[in-house]
Amino acid sequence: MENFKKAAILTIGDELMIGQIVDTNSTWIAAFLDQLGWKVSRKLGVPDSIEEIIEGMNICLDAADLLIMTGGLGPTNDDLTVDALCQFFNCEKVWHEDTWQRFIEILKRFGREPTEEHKQQCYQPETAEILSNNHGSAPGTLFRREDKIIISLPGVPNEMKYILEHKAAPLLPKGNIIEHRIIRTAGEGETILAHKIEDIEASLPVDIKLAYLPNFSQVTLRLSAYGENKKDALDQFEQQIIDRLGQLVYGTGNCTLSQSIGEMLAKRGESLGTAESCTGGYIAHLITSVPGSSNYYLGSVIPYAYELKTSLLSISTEMLMEYGAVSQEVITKMAEGVKEKLDVTWSIATSGIAGPGGATPHKPVGTIWIACSGPGGTKSRLLKLTRDRKSNIEYTAIAALVMLRNMILEEN
Amino acid sequence: MENFKKAAILTIGDELMIGQIVDTNSTWIAAFLDQLGWKVSRKLGVPDSIEEIIEGMNICLDAADLLIMTGGLGPTNDDLTVDALCQFFNCEKVWHEDTWQRFIEILKRFGREPTEEHKQQCYQPETAEILSNNHGSAPGTLFRREDKIIISLPGVPNEMKYILEHKAAPLLPKGNIIEHRIIRTAGEGETILAHKIEDIEASLPVDIKLAYLPNFSQVTLRLSAYGENKKDALDQFEQQIIDRLGQLVYGTGNCTLSQSIGEMLAKRGESLGTAESCTGGYIAHLITSVPGSSNYYLGSVIPYAYELKTSLLSISTEMLMEYGAVSQEVITKMAEGVKEKLDVTWSIATSGIAGPGGATPHKPVGTIWIACSGPGGTKSRLLKLTRDRKSNIEYTAIAALVMLRNMILEEN
Repeated sequence: MENFKKAAILTIGDELMIGQIVDTNSTWIAAFLDQLGWKVSRKLGVPDSIEEIIEGMNICLDAADLLIMTGGLGPTNDDLTVDALCQFFNCEKVWHEDTWQRFIEILKRFGREPTEEHKQQCYQPETAEILSNNHGSAPGTLFRREDKIIISLPGVPNEMKYILEHKAAPLLPKGNIIEHRIIRTAGEGETILAHKIEDIEASLPVDIKLAYLPNFSQVTLRLSAYGENKKDALDQFEQQIIDRLGQLVYGTGNCTLSQSIGEMLAKRGESLGTAESCTGGYIAHLITSVPGSSNYYLGSVIPYAYELKTSLLSISTEMLMEYGAVSQEVITKMAEGVKEKLDVTWSIATSGIAGPGGATPHKPVGTIWIACSGPGGTKSRLLKLTRDRKSNIEYTAIAALVMLRNMILEEN
Repeated sequence: MENFKKAAILTIGDELMIGQIVDTNSTWIAAFLDQLGWKVSRKLGVPDSIEEIIEGMNICLDAADLLIMTGGLGPTNDDLTVDALCQFFNCEKVWHEDTWQRFIEILKRFGREPTEEHKQQCYQPETAEILSNNHGSAPGTLFRREDKIIISLPGVPNEMKYILEHKAAPLLPKGNIIEHRIIRTAGEGETILAHKIEDIEASLPVDIKLAYLPNFSQVTLRLSAYGENKKDALDQFEQQIIDRLGQLVYGTGNCTLSQSIGEMLAKRGESLGTAESCTGGYIAHLITSVPGSSNYYLGSVIPYAYELKTSLLSISTEMLMEYGAVSQEVITKMAEGVKEKLDVTWSIATSGIAGPGGATPHKPVGTIWIACSGPGGTKSRLLKLTRDRKSNIEYTAIAALVMLRNMILEEN
């Protein structure tokens, strides 16, 4: 692995240096480069300063053949990357008419005129190849020097991703051979999974690595093979793991849990509806993030307030008074009520105390009921979570989707 | 600012270099150091390699008086930081009896015995000051060299935070004085904002910096002052910017857009409901992510399917047939229908084609209607977006919240 082609990532911005935002760009870029067979050997973050940017570029290029930089391309005074690039490559800023025409065109759609600031972003380093930005204003640039490639991209994540994927990647030389297999699981933690496949892991050759990526009750397993002719071995180990983990595996590659459920429903010609209280729309959001979800997902009611549980889902005031909204009786009724109301094959319901407020003496924060209803009946489950509001909502959503998936599988 | 005390952060681990995990440690450390008045001038990530760790330390110490390193302290073969430290400081690993005694004590609580792996973690660099770890096994270490301080911490976030806060911070010399002000805006892009406050920005003294952090139609502005006695000047510039930007500013500090709307509603004793089609629950999720949102948010209907627009929101089949679900007529009716149905003061509705499928000859992907209804009537707006599904959903949600906020402000 020593003679592998190496890449470096340079992120620019004071906001990174004072810890104001988490740097997700360099993570995305690293994963993207890895897929293309580039091994990232250095990730560097520097403040908004021409001197520091140039020094950073030197540090990165000392260790890499490819440098991807992000940030500092906006129109404001703290955006210094273009100036740094001109200084680094010893060239002038020149007017780029295409970028200007694109601005005029985009702004026209919104009935607006370009400003002086837009004009400024049309000046680009003379020696650069321009990577046009279909998702925003500042274009990316590409430079070649002594067999090395330097690419500068905007820091806005969707613009950066677009340009790197569609404009820059096709211009990159072929990387090393790295192949991955991604196995996605839900419903058990990393320790249990590792224990289940202990012997398979022990039998892996040195050039095939297994990594675990836990995220709440979802764990992604990644097999990576370095070098040529590893495809068959990789396929074989992937299949061994999938067979061993059985129902815990919901998909491979980039599949998400809600997508795998969507595919099952679409294939069965069945439909889904949700009634979310404590998750407040997050499950609906996960389901509708999947393209084509309108083919099986009919909709949701979010009866956040007490009264709406009655008016939208016909849960009687007596029942709510007797058991409380966070109870097995009410969650069952919610799942069954929304299934009937929306006339769907399957339904999911959630109700609980996400926190930090809302606890009662018998129901602490994190007390959450989930239920799923389908052709064979209704199942419910009590979660006792201990995390913050955001995490409790996310965990509950995944747990409910896992429950639904298992019920669909059992229904056959 | 040149003679400011500088710090650097070195993160170690292959998982960072292949983009397998997002590096939240360095963000947390940067924010922590910033509060202590240390300016982070370099953030570097390197793989699990003794050579790369040592080179990384040199790169960091070239630019900083304080180096915080994390990762590579575990018991497995890919944990190489202690060896790298010994090589860097030219010293031996020696047995650290206190760490051993702590292991025995902690494991006893769980009814377990220390293993060979625990023993290995008791060997620490001879010249290190040990920073004991009350939250895990591997201790941190501190080294002093030529007025510089080097601190090595475990990569497990809660262990790293504990040792840095409780064991390392008290040993650090006093940092510089840095103060920040955060101004949060929505509804206009960075370019327009910069244009509006051009003269204020030009009048900032050299030791007060302004930065822009754009994210879709939200832009966060940050004023940072370096040195003593800057509080008043900072307050003054913050107020000038807030006054100039007026309604575009929705909050300061850590406030989110949905939180600022929530505070307005709570103060006014008013309520909110939503009817989301194309955003599929994402607006409800943003609103209910705010603790205490059940005080003003009553709930939502998500009539994803055509039929539910009729059954849940009483939109006539004739109207849907005549204008289509993505139309000004239907979005207005959705906003008004859900306001009435849920008996709320305010409502938000969305309907559109998030993509990639669903386009018609007259309604391309990205054609999205939003509407808000309140005591003074209903407003609607057509968005023509050009992004991918995920971005279209996110952009629409923010645009709808901005619209609601403006209507509440105008209602007075």
